[in-house]
Amino acid sequence: MTRIAIIGGAGYTAVELIKILLRHPEAEIVAISDIQEGQPHIAAIHPSLNGRLDLRLEKLSPAEVAARADCVFCCLPHGVSASMVPDLLDAGARVVDFSADYRLDDPEVFAQWYGQKHADPDRLGKVVYGLPELFREQVVDAPLVANPGCFPTSVILPLAPLLRAGLIEPGGIIVDSKTGVSGAGRTLRLTTHYPECNESMTAYNLGRHRHTPEIEQILGSVAGTAVGVIFAPHLVPMDRGILTTTYSQPTKNSSEEELVQTLRDFYADEPFVRVVDHLPGTKDSWGTNFCDVTVRIVRNRVITISCVDNLIKGASGAAVQNFNLMYGYPETMAL
Amino acid sequence: MTRIAIIGGAGYTAVELIKILLRHPEAEIVAISDIQEGQPHIAAIHPSLNGRLDLRLEKLSPAEVAARADCVFCCLPHGVSASMVPDLLDAGARVVDFSADYRLDDPEVFAQWYGQKHADPDRLGKVVYGLPELFREQVVDAPLVANPGCFPTSVILPLAPLLRAGLIEPGGIIVDSKTGVSGAGRTLRLTTHYPECNESMTAYNLGRHRHTPEIEQILGSVAGTAVGVIFAPHLVPMDRGILTTTYSQPTKNSSEEELVQTLRDFYADEPFVRVVDHLPGTKDSWGTNFCDVTVRIVRNRVITISCVDNLIKGASGAAVQNFNLMYGYPETMAL
Amino acid sequence: MTRIAIIGGAGYTAVELIKILLRHPEAEIVAISDIQEGQPHIAAIHPSLNGRLDLRLEKLSPAEVAARADCVFCCLPHGVSASMVPDLLDAGARVVDFSADYRLDDPEVFAQWYGQKHADPDRLGKVVYGLPELFREQVVDAPLVANPGCFPTSVILPLAPLLRAGLIEPGGIIVDSKTGVSGAGRTLRLTTHYPECNESMTAYNLGRHRHTPEIEQILGSVAGTAVGVIFAPHLVPMDRGILTTTYSQPTKNSSEEELVQTLRDFYADEPFVRVVDHLPGTKDSWGTNFCDVTVRIVRNRVITISCVDNLIKGASGAAVQNFNLMYGYPETMAL
Amino acid sequence: MTRIAIIGGAGYTAVELIKILLRHPEAEIVAISDIQEGQPHIAAIHPSLNGRLDLRLEKLSPAEVAARADCVFCCLPHGVSASMVPDLLDAGARVVDFSADYRLDDPEVFAQWYGQKHADPDRLGKVVYGLPELFREQVVDAPLVANPGCFPTSVILPLAPLLRAGLIEPGGIIVDSKTGVSGAGRTLRLTTHYPECNESMTAYNLGRHRHTPEIEQILGSVAGTAVGVIFAPHLVPMDRGILTTTYSQPTKNSSEEELVQTLRDFYADEPFVRVVDHLPGTKDSWGTNFCDVTVRIVRNRVITISCVDNLIKGASGAAVQNFNLMYGYPETMAL
Repeated sequence: MTRIAIIGGAGYTAVELIKILLRHPEAEIVAISDIQEGQPHIAAIHPSLNGRLDLRLEKLSPAEVAARADCVFCCLPHGVSASMVPDLLDAGARVVDFSADYRLDDPEVFAQWYGQKHADPDRLGKVVYGLPELFREQVVDAPLVANPGCFPTSVILPLAPLLRAGLIEPGGIIVDSKTGVSGAGRTLRLTTHYPECNESMTAYNLGRHRHTPEIEQILGSVAGTAVGVIFAPHLVPMDRGILTTTYSQPTKNSSEEELVQTLRDFYADEPFVRVVDHLPGTKDSWGTNFCDVTVRIVRNRVITISCVDNLIKGASGAAVQNFNLMYGYPETMAL
Repeated sequence: MTRIAIIGGAGYTAVELIKILLRHPEAEIVAISDIQEGQPHIAAIHPSLNGRLDLRLEKLSPAEVAARADCVFCCLPHGVSASMVPDLLDAGARVVDFSADYRLDDPEVFAQWYGQKHADPDRLGKVVYGLPELFREQVVDAPLVANPGCFPTSVILPLAPLLRAGLIEPGGIIVDSKTGVSGAGRTLRLTTHYPECNESMTAYNLGRHRHTPEIEQILGSVAGTAVGVIFAPHLVPMDRGILTTTYSQPTKNSSEEELVQTLRDFYADEPFVRVVDHLPGTKDSWGTNFCDVTVRIVRNRVITISCVDNLIKGASGAAVQNFNLMYGYPETMAL
Repeated sequence: MTRIAIIGGAGYTAVELIKILLRHPEAEIVAISDIQEGQPHIAAIHPSLNGRLDLRLEKLSPAEVAARADCVFCCLPHGVSASMVPDLLDAGARVVDFSADYRLDDPEVFAQWYGQKHADPDRLGKVVYGLPELFREQVVDAPLVANPGCFPTSVILPLAPLLRAGLIEPGGIIVDSKTGVSGAGRTLRLTTHYPECNESMTAYNLGRHRHTPEIEQILGSVAGTAVGVIFAPHLVPMDRGILTTTYSQPTKNSSEEELVQTLRDFYADEPFVRVVDHLPGTKDSWGTNFCDVTVRIVRNRVITISCVDNLIKGASGAAVQNFNLMYGYPETMAL
Repeated sequence: MTRIAIIGGAGYTAVELIKILLRHPEAEIVAISDIQEGQPHIAAIHPSLNGRLDLRLEKLSPAEVAARADCVFCCLPHGVSASMVPDLLDAGARVVDFSADYRLDDPEVFAQWYGQKHADPDRLGKVVYGLPELFREQVVDAPLVANPGCFPTSVILPLAPLLRAGLIEPGGIIVDSKTGVSGAGRTLRLTTHYPECNESMTAYNLGRHRHTPEIEQILGSVAGTAVGVIFAPHLVPMDRGILTTTYSQPTKNSSEEELVQTLRDFYADEPFVRVVDHLPGTKDSWGTNFCDVTVRIVRNRVITISCVDNLIKGASGAAVQNFNLMYGYPETMAL
């Protein structure tokens, strides 16, 4: 049994994380920290947890958190995480961090895309990127795991096998991603006000989305060469789910069957990647830790289609998958 | 041609009003007042108006508004309206007021339900309630029209004929209303944040909704006796539309056919009330000024079903219907 | 470990049932019967089951099913179930039946509401109604359990404690229910075609819905006297969830606190009924076996609000809850 | 006043067409033909038309239709249209055809993409493509106008100015389109059954969608050279709206401002194309005949974003725009 603390308990990734951990036979949630006044009960913030978890949100210092818990899930915004993680690690906790703070290797790149100096720059480049399908062995012993972004997971999983096998060109990859609204979080904005975004669809942050360098860094390390993407996210009127369509140039005359087989071979032993023949819908992986992927060739372009639940495989499910690896539990436990 | 000004241009009722007026051959929108900083273009606030209306939001006093316009549509919150309407009227404008400020006859009732003293109490009791199906003649000459609330419109239209004919008991009428989310307005709230209210349904303000006294006052005046309702509004994950189901006791052994015929007779000459045989859906009246109504008898209870678009017949369409009457245009013009 | 067969594997209740059973440590799905041609793989019918269950749909006789399985979940339409259940029981299987065939005690009432003669009339009146909150002890030893309808579950749970305590009148109870579209099943109809029912809301089957006699029979047995309801179902544009609002007359001057406390006392030891103070939304119980209930008094009317996931507590979750009781597993296992 | 007949009155394009024509001061709908049994009233098929149009669906021959009407709108599926249009033209009617039958110039290309021999091959190549922004003058005198497909409209309008100006490469253009569900029509299919497609998103017909040759033919004629697209349509859970994202290679070092200005110049006098600076959402053009377009440069790729209402500018609105041109009415009348 591992004692768990969660920092940043009021958001959507936290509540999904809690629901997964509640059915985890080896995890006990012992503390939830947040900055809310008055220590509200967790069920007052997330009514779906009524009768399922009897904890209050407390304002806790990293030291207090680490004194109670073995493993800490940090569900904080970027910038804030890096101000707490060092103290958590120093106090002996192991950490799964949901923010972008420890995903990039280079503090300069972080500063450029996130518009702020990194608070813990020396650690960058030494933190494992928590995508077990690529970095399982490093996750096992890691004191700190940088949990991947939701879009990057949906982009990296279909492209990594093709890039590693040298079957597609590493430059100029078009990435057209479509996400449900929960990906924008629980903070109120006009763009996520129901009558604004319901029955509508928009592109946003074209070429400026912060997941771009994360995608390129990880795919570059997989390909062994620089990878460049044109990343275009879109907002879709549904709660959850990401569907990512990528378009790349093949390097040789591969058949569709060879490409599909490359994916199948790469993920043959992976419990959470389903290489399918049909074109998957986001509903197929709704509420699960699966990533569904397939590939097509259209007029000498390689098209991949991939679907994940942005809150599960794109966040809290991946975090528990990492947790299972870190603590020696079966990787699929509770997932 | 009548010159129109709109006060409170940033909300959903304003944008729908503008769209209707843009196709009105006898209306010219000459000013839009709002408290936004920097006089933003209307299309910056409502992108759907791009290329359709070239006006900026200005901060205008009632006198400035009245100097430019013949008729003023006040799309302000309750409490604010009553602080501007007297000056508008004094300056010679005629006003259609969207707020609740002038719907109730009794300042005490207003204070009780709205939690504030009325700013213009002497006028109450002398303002026409702008439901042309009941008060058409008074609207024609009115300097000020109190535009009905969205829920009351959906409740009053099916019940008024039955109450006036004495076919149902005036007490203990159950009113179970279901509304789309635009009814909650454009102000950001957690309850209307997409991932909270999408794929969910809730009841709210049970027995405490401020439309209750408005419903009772108007139905009481129709029935000629006190009417009491138990009003239960519900929020439904859709943009627009109200479906109201009422349950009342019949006073005698009327058949379903007699009740339907009573509605048909009452609304025989009404252009915007459709008495139908089937059970209407809110989509049937989507984007229109129609109210669809029908009636059933189930186990000696009279059930009415009615549907309106809360932003059109429930707000801006009704306002233009009133405007047409006030200025002698065909009642259905632009609707 | 108990061997499970499912008859009628292509619908929404079946796929939800399978997902629950896949995480049940004591259940093994050994056969799925359906009338599809060509023995399609279950994942071809339900893509979400890809990689999770490796079974094909087979056309099996009751005897074949019973030879393989200990417990059979019948997910068949009414009328069909009663033609198979007797053979299943005779062959030694225990059965949880999702249809309405065994819920009513009286073959005459069945014939009147379902428009057909009952195929197994002698068994009626001897089958336990599988709502453990009321009939837990009878479920334990039952060879056949009639799994409750989704609407009845949402109606019976809030009203049963109040009726048993004699706090509300048993006659003339208004039941206004709102359901998500999955409640209409997977058969294609114009009313559930996306562009028809999305962004719309309708009432349907007013006073004629077949769940009416089921509600009245069970509530009558709880109250010890005849109970009469006016049942009005409505279709809401969301996947899942039922919100039921009931309106009844109090028998005495109970306070709201007394009514809430009556519910709390009645369900004090129930794992799946959450008596809450706030007005619950359907999203709070989404994907769970919970029923959320609360009660209000408005102008001397008792209003209950209750929410269930129609596919879980309203169908497949309740079925597994019954299964757990029947086989001596912890009642909440896998739920 | 022009007498109008509609053939194929039961679908979504027909009902939208009717709504537009009902507010057209110079159009009178005199007949609606369809194959429904029993001559149902149009309001029985489309309840939203209740009280707005008093016509029945009749089974009429082309000669009968042409005898009553001046202009015929054919809302028929491909293949069927070409079997009726010749007779309509011979009988003296002018025709706006919604199907794909007269959009392609080459019967071979038609046969290849639509899997059937064309019934009226000699006419191909002589029919004007009804996109007034490109072919206004030819529309004016045309006896037959091929109304454009919904996707092609959303693709051609943003790309045509850039191709004609030689600013982007004509080959390998990625077209990632997202459409609301009404685009799939009113025929019942599992993919458009609410609980299947709600809260889900899928790609479909990758590289095989029949709008591909239409896009390439028109863009090729604009560019004066062969144009090749990789077309990937996606289904989005909303009623209406298409958002198309295209990715192409620039031919020279144009700035974003130059590209936007190229669009602005091209559409300077167009009433229905709005070149905007922001990233438009489909809701901005919901229910209107507008196409909103903008352009971005991201890492040396040209990205266009365009939005149309698939039922209006993508079908019935465009048809009325063509009708207005054909009969000398103001192009924006009723739109």
